[in-house]
Amino acid sequence: MSAGTVELAVCSGIAHVLVQNSGKFNAISRLMWRELKRVFGSVHTNDEVRCVLIQGADGHFCAGGDISEYPKFRFDPGSLRDFHENDVWGGLQAMLDCDVPIVAQIEGNCIGAGLELACCCDLRIAGSSARFGAPIARLGFPMAPREAQLVARELGLSLARQMLLGAAVLDAVPLLATGFLSQVIEDRLLPEVALSVAQGITMLAPRAARMNKQTLRALCDPDLAALGEVSGGSAYDYAASAEHQEGVAAFTQKRRPVF
Amino acid sequence: MSAGTVELAVCSGIAHVLVQNSGKFNAISRLMWRELKRVFGSVHTNDEVRCVLIQGADGHFCAGGDISEYPKFRFDPGSLRDFHENDVWGGLQAMLDCDVPIVAQIEGNCIGAGLELACCCDLRIAGSSARFGAPIARLGFPMAPREAQLVARELGLSLARQMLLGAAVLDAVPLLATGFLSQVIEDRLLPEVALSVAQGITMLAPRAARMNKQTLRALCDPDLAALGEVSGGSAYDYAASAEHQEGVAAFTQKRRPVF
Amino acid sequence: MSAGTVELAVCSGIAHVLVQNSGKFNAISRLMWRELKRVFGSVHTNDEVRCVLIQGADGHFCAGGDISEYPKFRFDPGSLRDFHENDVWGGLQAMLDCDVPIVAQIEGNCIGAGLELACCCDLRIAGSSARFGAPIARLGFPMAPREAQLVARELGLSLARQMLLGAAVLDAVPLLATGFLSQVIEDRLLPEVALSVAQGITMLAPRAARMNKQTLRALCDPDLAALGEVSGGSAYDYAASAEHQEGVAAFTQKRRPVF
Repeated sequence: MSAGTVELAVCSGIAHVLVQNSGKFNAISRLMWRELKRVFGSVHTNDEVRCVLIQGADGHFCAGGDISEYPKFRFDPGSLRDFHENDVWGGLQAMLDCDVPIVAQIEGNCIGAGLELACCCDLRIAGSSARFGAPIARLGFPMAPREAQLVARELGLSLARQMLLGAAVLDAVPLLATGFLSQVIEDRLLPEVALSVAQGITMLAPRAARMNKQTLRALCDPDLAALGEVSGGSAYDYAASAEHQEGVAAFTQKRRPVF
Repeated sequence: MSAGTVELAVCSGIAHVLVQNSGKFNAISRLMWRELKRVFGSVHTNDEVRCVLIQGADGHFCAGGDISEYPKFRFDPGSLRDFHENDVWGGLQAMLDCDVPIVAQIEGNCIGAGLELACCCDLRIAGSSARFGAPIARLGFPMAPREAQLVARELGLSLARQMLLGAAVLDAVPLLATGFLSQVIEDRLLPEVALSVAQGITMLAPRAARMNKQTLRALCDPDLAALGEVSGGSAYDYAASAEHQEGVAAFTQKRRPVF
Repeated sequence: MSAGTVELAVCSGIAHVLVQNSGKFNAISRLMWRELKRVFGSVHTNDEVRCVLIQGADGHFCAGGDISEYPKFRFDPGSLRDFHENDVWGGLQAMLDCDVPIVAQIEGNCIGAGLELACCCDLRIAGSSARFGAPIARLGFPMAPREAQLVARELGLSLARQMLLGAAVLDAVPLLATGFLSQVIEDRLLPEVALSVAQGITMLAPRAARMNKQTLRALCDPDLAALGEVSGGSAYDYAASAEHQEGVAAFTQKRRPVF
């Protein structure tokens, strides 16, 4: 029986990441968490990639962790900690550490681990079928601290409480209103729209994108030490760069910039 | 003349808290702030309680502080500080420190002190008549710092500014859009829906709920020291607990868990 | 050729600030950043002013920086840093440091520098024509760190990412839903409504407004040291003030307070 896959294919500046665990709505197995870490580490260091587009297979984004594996390791504190702090957080941290903009194409179930994946993306475009939540209170366990911090930061405390304490599962439209989703699209048009958004990002200045991601990440550091580094160190080193000069020149000349 | 009451009744795992100050839309007197502290302290340590449902009497949640008492103590800096830091914050802190999920059933006026009570709740379900604000700029005074911190955290800076600087009073629908409210319900159906949400919470894993509340509270600590404690100390101690095993077993066996 | 102006006129307790750069949708030149600093510094220390109303000339709020100046200074790291840290941040910091409530009347383009100005205001009232974004990735450069921190704090991380990484330009209505805007009004009614909101603020307690602004500003300080100062020092000094006594007295006597 397959433990699922995380596939990567780079094409025209876009890294397509496909999350797949057949018959389980792409639930993430331990192997897949490790694959996510490897894939996003590889994307981060690939200068040809200007945008990541992540999606699930077969009409769902991701329905959670692969519960069939849980009895093997969840009931011992040490192995449970190892799972959350190393496997799960290793994958999520690699997504958060990726300097390339990440677009999530979300249809169907976006639950538990799937919600956490979505929280690591920059633009979240959902099909109208998408459903969001983390009803692990039905599974008898709380959310691990760093995962709860991520979810609360991205969704806001109020929605995080609804999901964690009330086991609420929400449709896409209310999450568009709060700003968590950038667009909600009819399911059949979703792949086309998400690809078009990703293609648009590949036309924008790639070094500026990486610097913006570093700055936005630094803002999430509670003591803002990282923002100080960006700010004090390299924040203005781009001044003489080709892409900066091209962007300003193109505007002045009323033409489209070529980055 | 009555100074109002905060009544507690525990029934089927739900702690029903009733805020009542007759003829004053349940405005909170000093005595009631102290009662809130006592009631929520008692709920926190009662292992039979799995959910708190708080509401106001007679068609309103709570319209503010009991202004008839203000001339007695507000015009001296020392007694004003004592009121805000001990009485008011004592009550609010007890709500924030309560590890049991709190559902607010909100109809009519949810103003000033009432808004602050609502900000200490986890799920906020409003009737369509509900109105929210803190127009104390009409009363000639600013919001106390810790209370402003609470309100800004829960409503967001923009809405907090509208309320504090513009004396804005908002309907329920815009606060549903931002995520502050979890549901807006026709008034006559509100008690039934709120009770049903509370009952649903009593069916979820109670220890997981308490751990989630501890983690979410720690996230609001500016230096995240408390998150470190949760994370470093007890975050995975639940591994072998009965409720964790029951939750995973029930999922695997495709039956409802019994917590 | 004019480098634009920032005009100030005080009338009936309202400081009217007009941002004007003709033919450029009021793009902010270096001179205008310095003028903003001067104007808001002057407003802050003027006890007659109870509200600021800021708007752009000729149907637009502000479309960004004045790009015609950029080739003069942007392509050298030292002069680029000087521009962002001294001119731009000098103007924005003066707005943030202003203790008087600021109402933004926003129509047409509210882009880049215009969005940053709007983020320094307390109440943002938009015409239905208003459009919001910071598509500087098309110009080949990232947002400076402190400006990104401001925009992310006011709009939320998700919308900041849409704008910075996706070059998204948003209409007013979705920004009303998130709470960033307090009202969206038909363009032709916007001036009347914005003035009326500003006039309403001049009727509220002016010292309470200044204290609320100090407290809300302190909440944005990452280590909350400033909140400690407000809280520990002067938070309750207003107890015996005339406006506090008038506000409570007026409520008790069921009349409108006169501040």
